[in-house]
Amino acid sequence: MNLEEFRAAGHAVIDFLADYHASLAQRPVMAQTRPGEVRAQLPETPPAQPEAFAGVLEDVERVVLPGLSLWQHPRFFGYFPSNADLGSVLGDFLSSGLGVLGLSWQSSPALTEVEEVVTDWMRQLVGLPDAFRGVIQDTASTSTLVALLCARERTTGYSGSHAGLQAEARPLVVYTSVYSHSSVQKAAVLAGFGNDNVRAIPTDEAFALRPDLLEAAMLSDLEAGRLPCAVVVSTGTTTTTALDPVAAVADLAERHGLWLHVDAAMAGTAMLLPECRWMWAGVERADSLVLNPHKWLGSVFDNSLYYVRDPEHLVRVMSTNPSYLQSAADHEVTNYRDWGIPLGRRFRALKLWSMLRTSGVEAIQARLRRDLDNAQWLAGQIKETADWQLLAPVPLQTLCVRYAPAGIEGDALDRLTQAWCARINDSGEAYLTPATLEGRWMVRVSIGALTTEREHVEQLWEMMRRHAAEAAHELKA
Amino acid sequence: MNLEEFRAAGHAVIDFLADYHASLAQRPVMAQTRPGEVRAQLPETPPAQPEAFAGVLEDVERVVLPGLSLWQHPRFFGYFPSNADLGSVLGDFLSSGLGVLGLSWQSSPALTEVEEVVTDWMRQLVGLPDAFRGVIQDTASTSTLVALLCARERTTGYSGSHAGLQAEARPLVVYTSVYSHSSVQKAAVLAGFGNDNVRAIPTDEAFALRPDLLEAAMLSDLEAGRLPCAVVVSTGTTTTTALDPVAAVADLAERHGLWLHVDAAMAGTAMLLPECRWMWAGVERADSLVLNPHKWLGSVFDNSLYYVRDPEHLVRVMSTNPSYLQSAADHEVTNYRDWGIPLGRRFRALKLWSMLRTSGVEAIQARLRRDLDNAQWLAGQIKETADWQLLAPVPLQTLCVRYAPAGIEGDALDRLTQAWCARINDSGEAYLTPATLEGRWMVRVSIGALTTEREHVEQLWEMMRRHAAEAAHELKA
Ligand SMILES: Cc1ncc(COP(=O)(O)O)c(C=O)c1O
Ligand SMILES: Cc1ncc(COP(=O)(O)O)c(C=O)c1O
Repeated sequence: MNLEEFRAAGHAVIDFLADYHASLAQRPVMAQTRPGEVRAQLPETPPAQPEAFAGVLEDVERVVLPGLSLWQHPRFFGYFPSNADLGSVLGDFLSSGLGVLGLSWQSSPALTEVEEVVTDWMRQLVGLPDAFRGVIQDTASTSTLVALLCARERTTGYSGSHAGLQAEARPLVVYTSVYSHSSVQKAAVLAGFGNDNVRAIPTDEAFALRPDLLEAAMLSDLEAGRLPCAVVVSTGTTTTTALDPVAAVADLAERHGLWLHVDAAMAGTAMLLPECRWMWAGVERADSLVLNPHKWLGSVFDNSLYYVRDPEHLVRVMSTNPSYLQSAADHEVTNYRDWGIPLGRRFRALKLWSMLRTSGVEAIQARLRRDLDNAQWLAGQIKETADWQLLAPVPLQTLCVRYAPAGIEGDALDRLTQAWCARINDSGEAYLTPATLEGRWMVRVSIGALTTEREHVEQLWEMMRRHAAEAAHELKA
Repeated sequence: MNLEEFRAAGHAVIDFLADYHASLAQRPVMAQTRPGEVRAQLPETPPAQPEAFAGVLEDVERVVLPGLSLWQHPRFFGYFPSNADLGSVLGDFLSSGLGVLGLSWQSSPALTEVEEVVTDWMRQLVGLPDAFRGVIQDTASTSTLVALLCARERTTGYSGSHAGLQAEARPLVVYTSVYSHSSVQKAAVLAGFGNDNVRAIPTDEAFALRPDLLEAAMLSDLEAGRLPCAVVVSTGTTTTTALDPVAAVADLAERHGLWLHVDAAMAGTAMLLPECRWMWAGVERADSLVLNPHKWLGSVFDNSLYYVRDPEHLVRVMSTNPSYLQSAADHEVTNYRDWGIPLGRRFRALKLWSMLRTSGVEAIQARLRRDLDNAQWLAGQIKETADWQLLAPVPLQTLCVRYAPAGIEGDALDRLTQAWCARINDSGEAYLTPATLEGRWMVRVSIGALTTEREHVEQLWEMMRRHAAEAAHELKA
């Protein structure tokens, strides 16, 4: 594609996207697509001859859009918010359009230095101490894997650099709560700990990890000749946004020499609000921490911040230094390739930088407070309404909800819950995620899309009551 | 940022990028920036109040651009081509602008299905058998880590799912050539094998892995009670684009039950040319393979294709299945979260799809042949010119070069090599990467930026002779 074609097609893309965003509220939130339907509309073989970009755009409109679930829709209440603030989107356009690559500092100095600046801005914004240094990874899953690799290497005296994990005869144990994100278990499996050595510690009535049971598990592992290695706590679990007690766990981690990793992937964003900082009190004692600006905060995916207190340890675990990547500046600069798994790196700092500058921190804080208020409003409605249950505390923007009219229990209640949730999702009017809590299905309402105002939450609440009542009626019939 | 602001700022970004690309050839290729210079020009604290996007764009122009090394410049001959075809850039704009997220098929069906289509197009284009299924990862580093994790799990009967790597008493060994990419060793370290269990097998006079020495190493490990687990061969090593003998290694891997991973990150692109396919003869017997469209092929970073022959094994190693990610369609669809490390996924298929459609395969093939011709032309010049040496065969688009006038040897020759390379890089006229080969410095010329025509290679050759002669003169003085 030459520059004149790029200019014309680029302007068309901008207008297409602006129109698309303007039309979002009128589109179905959840894709109403059957498996294979999108694939069946596309050619099975690649094109020998070029076509104009307009053809691609047409297929995006005709084939792709109907196959998308719309995370930016004002009535998207599924999973968690994955916002794409338009200021950050433009920052990402610059990243793709400049076409530069981070390998070493030398290979594009500004790519590294803007990342240093913006990760430090975010450190200040969430109130972490000076000592923490940050890097942008793709996802929290990767960040948590990096954390557990660092933990493994610290506990074993750098097994990776020497004889391998097997040189340590004792099994290494990772502790986390039963409600931690699936990425914690996956990271432990990939890092070689083994599933059998991941302890899922039970939680209290607020679904937060119980430090007394954590300590008991550690002591029993020690007694059995195993080596407690790392503990992962969540500031905001995925299911209920429960808040594990960071300070109490930090006491235990310090006493027994464990690595402490804080998963604040989703809820870390709330720490931009000083009134929320109590939620992770003790965080300054963590060894590492992950916080995803690509969720509620709004920096378009992918953008996951990973902070460590001791970057030298991180670099020692992750570094490589082949001759073709060496440069005279190496002793004075940060080479982020040694801060994570990939060698090549995108200029991902641009989207976060652009978002923070075009939004301003105060407006972001106001938006987050709006979402917290909307969640409290809905929580109030649910508490006041007969047959509706709120199953967990609502410290943030996620509600765990069930409709349980008298006479429907057990498996029948599970069927009802899944039925009314599916009715809403299938209607295309709103999107909710069903999940299990203590073995039974419930529905999560996760508030926080950029465009979600009180009216949308009110509309959702009306839909929930209507569809739940209709589903219950059908179930009885 | 509201939609009207986005529209206006978006058009400004398109024009900015078009102008930037038009100006590329006049800008210095290597950033002429001192460590900390970019950082010093940016505020240390985040902005409380918003500013117009124009301010961001101004800082990109004033602060960022001078701090970039220009991978898209026609005289970029460094590292390897990391092309950003403008058709693929527009595809990436759509990905960011649509703001959708892949978690499960359900969370955005088209994201998954376009990826299935386009990875299959690429499979056909490089001539891999039907049985291979592909997924897009961020980088080859990650793909190779995934390969070694799959190898580890196959060899140990799924240690990760059970008691951990330590349950296997015998050390697990990974084999690769001394010239394989640093990401192979890093992946082995991260996967817990340990550095001591990575065998760097010596190469022949063409810098290709020697199967006889590979077999000897395997046998000696077996004899010592170690467990050969995986072998990573390169189709195109980073230093010289050497071609490891895939078929001969596949024989050994099959005989001894090793996982065979092919790193074709850089040179796999050449397999779009049928006349190059001999270079990886035997590839159909690989267990896994990585090929980076974000390099020479031109799909803007990040875009790394990972192919496997047995997706079920991959999924078994990588999968998680929490309740909030389950959907009724799961048994009929691909859930790519189980094909790699991250949970959340970008719509990365769009950029590759858009590039292939707007370029057409025949034009891409013609461009690759142009680059191969340019490399042969320069190789011819070097061979004919006194005091210049070509240090390795040139099967593709990378040349390894030294200027060695009589009387300069050993460390002095190293200093001369680094001096003339630095003179060119510091001039901003072209960018080359110095590297070591058999313990001595040489200079790599990696041809293949989209805009690099014969004239640019001719200009480079003139600069090389001039700067080398001047540097030799200075050294003698
Ligand atoms: C608490 C928590 N941790 C980790 C993740 C995983 O995030 P990612 O997709 O960035 O890996 C999520 C969300 O999916 C989450 O809510
Ligand atoms: C042969 C080879 N393998 C792997 C890599 C690593 O690529 P990535 O940056 O995608 O991890 C490169 C290039 O850097 C390479 O040339």
